[in-house]
Amino acid sequence: MRETDLLAHIADRSKGLTGAYPGVVVVGPGDDCAVVRVGEGDTLLTVDQLVEGRHFAPQTAVDLIARKAVARSISDIAAMGGTPRWGLATGLLPRGYGHADALFDAMARWGIEFGAPLVGGDVAMWDGGLVLTCTVGGVPHAVRGPVLRSGARTGDELWVTGRVGGSLASGRHLTFVPRVAEGGWLCDVLGTDLHAMIDVSDGVGRDAARLGAASGVAVEIDLSRVPLHQGVGDSVRAIGEGEDYELLFAAAPGASLAAATLQGTLLTRIGRFAVGSGCVSVDARGGRLEVSQRGWEH
Amino acid sequence: MRETDLLAHIADRSKGLTGAYPGVVVVGPGDDCAVVRVGEGDTLLTVDQLVEGRHFAPQTAVDLIARKAVARSISDIAAMGGTPRWGLATGLLPRGYGHADALFDAMARWGIEFGAPLVGGDVAMWDGGLVLTCTVGGVPHAVRGPVLRSGARTGDELWVTGRVGGSLASGRHLTFVPRVAEGGWLCDVLGTDLHAMIDVSDGVGRDAARLGAASGVAVEIDLSRVPLHQGVGDSVRAIGEGEDYELLFAAAPGASLAAATLQGTLLTRIGRFAVGSGCVSVDARGGRLEVSQRGWEH
Repeated sequence: MRETDLLAHIADRSKGLTGAYPGVVVVGPGDDCAVVRVGEGDTLLTVDQLVEGRHFAPQTAVDLIARKAVARSISDIAAMGGTPRWGLATGLLPRGYGHADALFDAMARWGIEFGAPLVGGDVAMWDGGLVLTCTVGGVPHAVRGPVLRSGARTGDELWVTGRVGGSLASGRHLTFVPRVAEGGWLCDVLGTDLHAMIDVSDGVGRDAARLGAASGVAVEIDLSRVPLHQGVGDSVRAIGEGEDYELLFAAAPGASLAAATLQGTLLTRIGRFAVGSGCVSVDARGGRLEVSQRGWEH
Repeated sequence: MRETDLLAHIADRSKGLTGAYPGVVVVGPGDDCAVVRVGEGDTLLTVDQLVEGRHFAPQTAVDLIARKAVARSISDIAAMGGTPRWGLATGLLPRGYGHADALFDAMARWGIEFGAPLVGGDVAMWDGGLVLTCTVGGVPHAVRGPVLRSGARTGDELWVTGRVGGSLASGRHLTFVPRVAEGGWLCDVLGTDLHAMIDVSDGVGRDAARLGAASGVAVEIDLSRVPLHQGVGDSVRAIGEGEDYELLFAAAPGASLAAATLQGTLLTRIGRFAVGSGCVSVDARGGRLEVSQRGWEH
């Protein structure tokens, strides 16, 4: 398929966007720029790449590739406690690629599904592999504001949503639902007691270390408390794997999360922040292991 | 260089952004999302890819690659009559790529130079070629609003800024200055008489045809009027080449552009819009040639 036809197809399919999102999408795909009305206040912006052979295997179903391309960026919005509002997508396609329509249709669908209608983008072809990007804009929580990585304090508790481990082996890295609802709920419930947050893309160890480093404090993870997915037996390995896309957050000690579930999503206290630096895991016998570098680097 | 080091380097170098752009960059590189404050009203959004072997030759200087990656997206903002406000960049780098720092430093510099400080991005490495993207957000002209492709009317005049032709051969495709000032000035001067606009990325013929198609009218280009760069002899070939990044616009007939220069930038009336469809060039002898498909498709 030629690029012109593809772009025309995308523009045609997107004609309903301005009606479907009045006041947001002023001009969708098909012009030099998309126009969005974001009203007053802060806009959250993020962009991620999805690269063949690195973030997905070549034989992966097109719908799952599209889904992951969008979901990764949405997860960054969730990690700020925000709500996605719009997205832009790019696709660099292998010459002769046969699934371009299906791919961009699927990206558009997942954009809407996750609250970020794709209002523009760019397509090119070349002799290399498939590369997608997704830019997403969103708004922070109206009361709490954007939740940064840098707000954790000594004495804070480290919490995680859901379960971790085995994402690549199980295929969950292709089917996860970004934790937008949970991030918003944490802002609602904890308010200013929600001190810092990140999504787990490179592993609990490495991402907890990022919270600590950004905040100037040390992190300790209680290995025995880390909630693992069924079939995942090794906690040390699990916190060194990536692509969980759970939320990892610092909450003031004693924060009111006693119920420990959020509409079916598990919430687990798995550690604490302390004076110092680095990120260690502590096992049931008190064995300590530096885990800052154990995540998978994307 | 490892990605972590590179990202840390980018975050470190970007620390001054929030101070340099108060009220715009609330949170720059280094967190899950960048935060920008766009105030009330419309935001212009665009993203473009820059691909090794397609948009630049492998041996191109790093600074010129970076410049073009940013400038292409800025040119889209100019084509709406808008002003860039912020950018996001991604880089997919060949494993072992030796110029990552220089590349991202240069992109950041060009972002600032062109009015779009890069507030975030993503970096990955793989075994393929170099691929960059740049997302840019901007604001439309405060009075005229966004200038779309679709506003041209029968009887309108077709104008172009600057000169065209020979961009690839001369290297101008790497060194052009996006026409942001000119786009804004056209909005100032013409107001609602500025009916439609596009930037010339794929050739005057193909891009004029896009204005016509979006507006439901035909376009005629007077070949003898097309302003060519020095050393470019063939008008038909010149309007079939791409990468001029000039502004091509539809103005109400008799619009007050008699001075025909804008602070040193030539303005030339090169054609008209008429009832019908398609885009033809007309030579001095009245010979007509359909040129809608003669541009270079990116």
